[in-house]
Amino acid sequence: MTRAGRILPAVEDRRGFLRKSLALASGGAVAIAASGARAQGDPAILKLPAHSTGLGQPVAAHPYGLPSEYEKNLQRRESPGLTRVSQASVSFAPLQGMFGIITPSGLHFERHHQGWWDIDPRQHRLMLMGMVRQPKVYTMDDLMRLPSVSRIHFIECGANSGMEWNNVSVPTVQYTHGMLACCEFTGVRLATLLEDCGADTKKGRYVLAEGADGSGLTRTIAMERALDDAIVAWGMNGEMLRPENGYPLRLVVPGVQGVSWVKWLRRIEVGDQPWYTREETLHYIDLMPDGRHRQFTSIQECKSVITSPSGGQTLLDKGHYNVSGLAWSGRGRIRRVDVSFDGGRNWRTARIEGPVLSKALTRFNISWTWDGAPAILQSRAIDETGYVQPKIAQLRAIRGTRSIYHNNAIQSWRVAASGEVGNVQMD
Amino acid sequence: MTRAGRILPAVEDRRGFLRKSLALASGGAVAIAASGARAQGDPAILKLPAHSTGLGQPVAAHPYGLPSEYEKNLQRRESPGLTRVSQASVSFAPLQGMFGIITPSGLHFERHHQGWWDIDPRQHRLMLMGMVRQPKVYTMDDLMRLPSVSRIHFIECGANSGMEWNNVSVPTVQYTHGMLACCEFTGVRLATLLEDCGADTKKGRYVLAEGADGSGLTRTIAMERALDDAIVAWGMNGEMLRPENGYPLRLVVPGVQGVSWVKWLRRIEVGDQPWYTREETLHYIDLMPDGRHRQFTSIQECKSVITSPSGGQTLLDKGHYNVSGLAWSGRGRIRRVDVSFDGGRNWRTARIEGPVLSKALTRFNISWTWDGAPAILQSRAIDETGYVQPKIAQLRAIRGTRSIYHNNAIQSWRVAASGEVGNVQMD
Repeated sequence: MTRAGRILPAVEDRRGFLRKSLALASGGAVAIAASGARAQGDPAILKLPAHSTGLGQPVAAHPYGLPSEYEKNLQRRESPGLTRVSQASVSFAPLQGMFGIITPSGLHFERHHQGWWDIDPRQHRLMLMGMVRQPKVYTMDDLMRLPSVSRIHFIECGANSGMEWNNVSVPTVQYTHGMLACCEFTGVRLATLLEDCGADTKKGRYVLAEGADGSGLTRTIAMERALDDAIVAWGMNGEMLRPENGYPLRLVVPGVQGVSWVKWLRRIEVGDQPWYTREETLHYIDLMPDGRHRQFTSIQECKSVITSPSGGQTLLDKGHYNVSGLAWSGRGRIRRVDVSFDGGRNWRTARIEGPVLSKALTRFNISWTWDGAPAILQSRAIDETGYVQPKIAQLRAIRGTRSIYHNNAIQSWRVAASGEVGNVQMD
Repeated sequence: MTRAGRILPAVEDRRGFLRKSLALASGGAVAIAASGARAQGDPAILKLPAHSTGLGQPVAAHPYGLPSEYEKNLQRRESPGLTRVSQASVSFAPLQGMFGIITPSGLHFERHHQGWWDIDPRQHRLMLMGMVRQPKVYTMDDLMRLPSVSRIHFIECGANSGMEWNNVSVPTVQYTHGMLACCEFTGVRLATLLEDCGADTKKGRYVLAEGADGSGLTRTIAMERALDDAIVAWGMNGEMLRPENGYPLRLVVPGVQGVSWVKWLRRIEVGDQPWYTREETLHYIDLMPDGRHRQFTSIQECKSVITSPSGGQTLLDKGHYNVSGLAWSGRGRIRRVDVSFDGGRNWRTARIEGPVLSKALTRFNISWTWDGAPAILQSRAIDETGYVQPKIAQLRAIRGTRSIYHNNAIQSWRVAASGEVGNVQMD
């Protein structure tokens, strides 16, 4: 049941089950690898690879390290034609080839409104103003002297999975769910800064966050959220933010859609009503069936997706697979993830290992023996509030099909008898 | 009390308190930054920076992202002359400029015995043999089909802080403690592979792990540990291991010194006694005062260090600082970290925020107001077993001064009246 000569699609990588491989359960004859050949004493296979005999590369050959040359296919990718210019576009993370919950900074998705810049941190300032006793302007040095926190949170663009609303089945998980990341952020709590400036947190029910890029992106955030767990962050995954993720300063608003995590953050204003800016009135709104739209629907509700196997990959053998995916909720922790292999008729609970953190990605795994027959794989997450990730039909019944944002429906992957995996819409 | 013109040492970076900065507590007059100038209506300061008016870089300008150009000084560094050739040397991580608990893969320390290679994963094999019912050779694809786990653990070279045994006060935390990292590792439990091959886990009390590099590095590991939490890992921080960290396969032995985390792992053998290989008899042993040496002292005991401020940095102001550091234990979780600002006479308990994970780095922070007088900063960690990180004098009383490995003593940083921070040995 192997198909050694098969050409695999370009979106696919060299991961696990994607190629002809020894079926472990088969218990067949075992070849002796070159690496163990010396113990066997067979001169015909004593030829060791160069890396087992020679002198390799020195330390600090790359003072800042890089991935293997064999991993070049695993990269973030733009969806050509999605927007008029690439400065106002998206690059998607290759979830199909990623592991665990931490997103390496080099693969963090991008969504810009007017392109990114590498801003000199010595010149950058953050101003706090509005309904405060003492407006202040902070240098990066000022901020870094304040009490800091480090927390792991997911960030998801509100438009993630947006194409699925209208039956456009994007072929791979990189494009269906790739506007998603999870990193450890370090910075000062926004609450600390508001206190430092003497913000009126009773009458001042909202804050405005503004970015320093050309789009001057602005979002209103409720004071309750600003005082809770929002962070003015400079650190991401142990080092400074990357330029395309807001270096040197961005807002982190755990559980809330990515557009509110304002990059290149330069200004926080305290006010007594929402600002109704362009990015919260024209965009990032949900158009409902009756023609009205919902605003400020910013929480990313409980969601999950199987990342492997997923669309564009091919199973080349029957047998055992480790089915793996991600679950997350803007409301808190993931309680459980169920997986179906028959399009939702039967469900089994997946293994969740590693830390289960609030408003962070959670990795799940489940064993599956594929018998070679067509199958439909789905995952369904439940968060600590008891909320159950809905089917797309349930979402459409309320919200219609004209939305772009906030699609947290169950994703279905169809495995054909050929082993090919594709995106399929299931009611 | 500012010293604007001061030249700072090269080892120092642009972090927080290292430069002239507004003292937040001073409540002085606040300048209006360019970023907020539009609201003020002053034409003289309406000139916005280019990044606030122009079109920036497109998405996926770097399909694999890189740090800011302004962060080039934050890199891993070799200690020249430490070994005869750089292929058998160390590069140290710049802990003084790092945040949180996750080590970005680009800054993970290196320790090689015969250099590193970028091994083709399609050619790489792992053999399990010895006291097993069925020896097996696994391809990478075979391994990736097995049930996988993702876990965050620290790795520390047994020789970390080794120079301090003999009063050689290395100047910076990069060189005193920089053989330390904490990453999320993904792979298959070694226990799963041992079961798959029918290992005799009763008579087979040990396993040997062997690397595929030119040094053929080998280490004995107790079966108890192999069955507990050891992982045969391909993933690190969400992507494949980096070549210099063992790509495509390394052993992860949580809590144990780095040399046992065999890189470029090619062979696991099950046996009934230790192998007494070169790397566990000649090296990685502890020479005691009576001339004998201790072997197989592989657990990294509870330890901590203040990373900021630390040696080579300079405080340029009196006032508030966020003192930050790392704590870890090879025995489990960190229970508490205490910090002293007077050389150990008085201690205050630090804040621990973010996840506290078993056998992982734990970030602590504590607020400190520097009055301008000389001070000695120390941190002291306590793990969940109740073990308290010792003073160097306590370690020397038992182990003398001829060791290289397994120094987990309290680290002292002296702050001079000039603000300069240096390494100082305290009994």
